[in-house]
Amino acid sequence: MSSIKHTVVIVGYGGMGSYHTQLIKESDRVIVSGAFDLLEDRRTLAAEAGYTAYSSYEEVLADPDVEIILIATPNDVHKDIAVRAFQAGKHVVCEKPVAMSSAEFTEMQAAADAAGRVLMVHQNRRWDEDFRVIKEMYEKETIGSLFQIESRVHGANGIPGDWRHVKAQGGGMLLDWGVHLLDQLLFMIDSKVTSVSSSLSFILGNDVDDGFEAILQFENGIKAIVEVGTTNFITLPRWYVKGLEGTAIIEDWSLRGRMVTRNNASEKIEPTPIRAGVGLTKTMAPPSEGSTITEDLPAASELSSSFYDNLAAVIEGTAEPIVKNAEVLRVLVLIEAIFEAAEKNETIKNFDIYEA
Amino acid sequence: MSSIKHTVVIVGYGGMGSYHTQLIKESDRVIVSGAFDLLEDRRTLAAEAGYTAYSSYEEVLADPDVEIILIATPNDVHKDIAVRAFQAGKHVVCEKPVAMSSAEFTEMQAAADAAGRVLMVHQNRRWDEDFRVIKEMYEKETIGSLFQIESRVHGANGIPGDWRHVKAQGGGMLLDWGVHLLDQLLFMIDSKVTSVSSSLSFILGNDVDDGFEAILQFENGIKAIVEVGTTNFITLPRWYVKGLEGTAIIEDWSLRGRMVTRNNASEKIEPTPIRAGVGLTKTMAPPSEGSTITEDLPAASELSSSFYDNLAAVIEGTAEPIVKNAEVLRVLVLIEAIFEAAEKNETIKNFDIYEA
Repeated sequence: MSSIKHTVVIVGYGGMGSYHTQLIKESDRVIVSGAFDLLEDRRTLAAEAGYTAYSSYEEVLADPDVEIILIATPNDVHKDIAVRAFQAGKHVVCEKPVAMSSAEFTEMQAAADAAGRVLMVHQNRRWDEDFRVIKEMYEKETIGSLFQIESRVHGANGIPGDWRHVKAQGGGMLLDWGVHLLDQLLFMIDSKVTSVSSSLSFILGNDVDDGFEAILQFENGIKAIVEVGTTNFITLPRWYVKGLEGTAIIEDWSLRGRMVTRNNASEKIEPTPIRAGVGLTKTMAPPSEGSTITEDLPAASELSSSFYDNLAAVIEGTAEPIVKNAEVLRVLVLIEAIFEAAEKNETIKNFDIYEA
Repeated sequence: MSSIKHTVVIVGYGGMGSYHTQLIKESDRVIVSGAFDLLEDRRTLAAEAGYTAYSSYEEVLADPDVEIILIATPNDVHKDIAVRAFQAGKHVVCEKPVAMSSAEFTEMQAAADAAGRVLMVHQNRRWDEDFRVIKEMYEKETIGSLFQIESRVHGANGIPGDWRHVKAQGGGMLLDWGVHLLDQLLFMIDSKVTSVSSSLSFILGNDVDDGFEAILQFENGIKAIVEVGTTNFITLPRWYVKGLEGTAIIEDWSLRGRMVTRNNASEKIEPTPIRAGVGLTKTMAPPSEGSTITEDLPAASELSSSFYDNLAAVIEGTAEPIVKNAEVLRVLVLIEAIFEAAEKNETIKNFDIYEA
C-alpha cells in the first residue's frame, strides 16, 4: 500500500461537508487540505478548523496541490462543479444523490472518462452496520433464503429547512434518503428489478415529497418495501425481513433486534386458538411453546475497505471501486421509475438497466 | 323491544360454528336450538352440548320452529345452503367470506329478496375493540385528520390444515382475514377507493395465498395498507396510523398502544443531528425534548348494538342492519380487484361500486 496521502478540498462546507472532515480523519490515505463555500461565515469556520479557505472555486481548481474535489453542495450544482473539476484534472468525490437525473450523471461520467479521472459517489450507507447485518443474513441465509425485505426510515421533524425542501435544488426524501436505501438493496440483491410501484407523500405542503413508499419486485422472487417518512411520530422498525425459516428485525440505529426461527427439532404442536378482538383465531395465535427459537442477530458482513481507503486505492489503480458508477446510474434510473410510478399511479416494468 | 327469542340452527358445527354458540349466549334476543354437520362426531358434540342434532339439512329446513340458519361451512357451499334456506322461508346469517365471488353473493341476495327474508353476513370484526379505537380516532381526529392507515395481522402458523388451504373451497388469507380487514376500512372510511395495488404470497406451497399486501388509495386522500401474513415469526403492529398532528399505534390484540402528537405549546426547537449508521442526520433525529406529547389511546367508538341484537331487530323490522349487504358486496368487489391487481401486477382503478 502506498504511503502517499491524497489531498481533498471540500466544496460546500455545510453540515455534510464539515462532517466529511471527521470521516476522512478515519482514513490514513486521504487528508483534507482546504475548503470552499459561497458563504463567508463557513469559509471562516473552515479556516478556524485549520484548513485553507479558498475564496473562489477557480482558486481551488487552479491549485496544483489539490488532487480531489469533494462536492457537498446542493444537488442541482453537483454536475457543473464536477465537470469543471475533471477539466482541471481533479478527481471527484460527490455526495448523494450524485445528480438530478440519470442523464446528468451520464454527463458527469463522460467528463471523468474524458479526463481520465476518478468519480466516486459517497454512497456511504453501504457501510452502515444495520445494513451489513441484513447483508450477512441475506448472503448466509441465516433465517433461510430471504423473500421479503422491508427497509424503513422514519422521522418526525419534517424536511430540514434548507435547500432539501426545494424541488429545483434536488430536494425531497426520495432523492435524499431514498437514494441510500435503494442503493443498499441493489448492492445486496444481485437480481433484476422487474417492477416497481410507489406513492409519494406531500403532507407538509412542500413542493417535494416529504416521504415515499416504493415496492420493488425482483426477478429472483424477492419483494422489497422501501419507505421513508418525516411525519412519523412513532417509528416502525428500521429493518423487517422474512426468510423461509424465520423473521428478523432491527428496531433502530442502536442495532437492537432479534431473529426468530422455526424450531425444526421440536415436535409439530398445533397452536391453541386465541380470542382476538371478538373473534377466535388459530391462524393468528402465537406459535406453541418450544416451536420457535429466538436469537441475537449475526455479526455484520464486512466490506473489503473503508470508503476513503478504497478511494485512494482506486486513484492509485490498485483496486476496483466499491461504489461503482454503473451501480449509481442504476439507482438513479430506479428513482426515475419510482417518480414515474407515483405520478401515474401505475406499476412500472422493464426499466431496470441491471446486467447479470 | 320485543321479548321473543329467535331460534338459530348452526349449519357447519366446526370451530367457528361452535364458537357462535358462545357469541349468541351474549345476546338475549337469539338462541341456538340445533345444529347440523356432515360429520357424525360433530353432530354428537352438538347433541352433547344440549342442541337438537339434525341428521340432514333437509330435516333442518323442514322444521317450522327453525327461524334462522347460521352458515359456518366451508365457503364454497355457502351459496347453495343459503338459497335453499331462503326457499324454505328461513333467515340466514352467513360466515365470511359470504361467497366465492361478488356474482355468487348477488344470487344469494336475490334469493333473500325473493323470499322476503333477511341475509346478514357475520362481519363481526367491526366490533373488535382495536378497530373501534382507530374508528374513534378517525371520527374525532384525535391526532388530526388521518391520512395513512396501516392494518396488519401477522401469524407464524401457516394456513390451518383444513379447507382453508384449498382454492376450490374458498381458502387463502385474502378471503379469510382480508375480508375482515377490508370490511373494517370500508365501514370506517366514507370515500371511494380510487386505486388498489397488491401482491399475494405463496411461500408455503399451497394453491391459495398464505398472505397478501394491498394498498388502497381513497378519493379523500387516505392511503391504506392492509397486510396479512402467516409466515411472520415476529409481528409488526396490528395498527399504525398517521394523522396531521401525530401517529398512533396498537401493538396487538391486548390493545397495548399509544399516540404521540406534536406539542403545539412548545417552542420550535431544531432537533440535534445524530449519528445514524456511518452518516449524520438531522431529519431522522428524535424530535427535541418537549416537542411531542405521548398519551394513552382513546376509548373505543361504540356501535349501536351487538351483532345478534341487531339481527333480531332487523328480522323484526325495527332497525337497519349494521352490516349492510351493499357494503358486503363492495368488499367482495374490492377483493376481486385485489386478486386482479396481484395477478396482473398492475394498479387497478375504476372498480369501486361505492355510492356516496
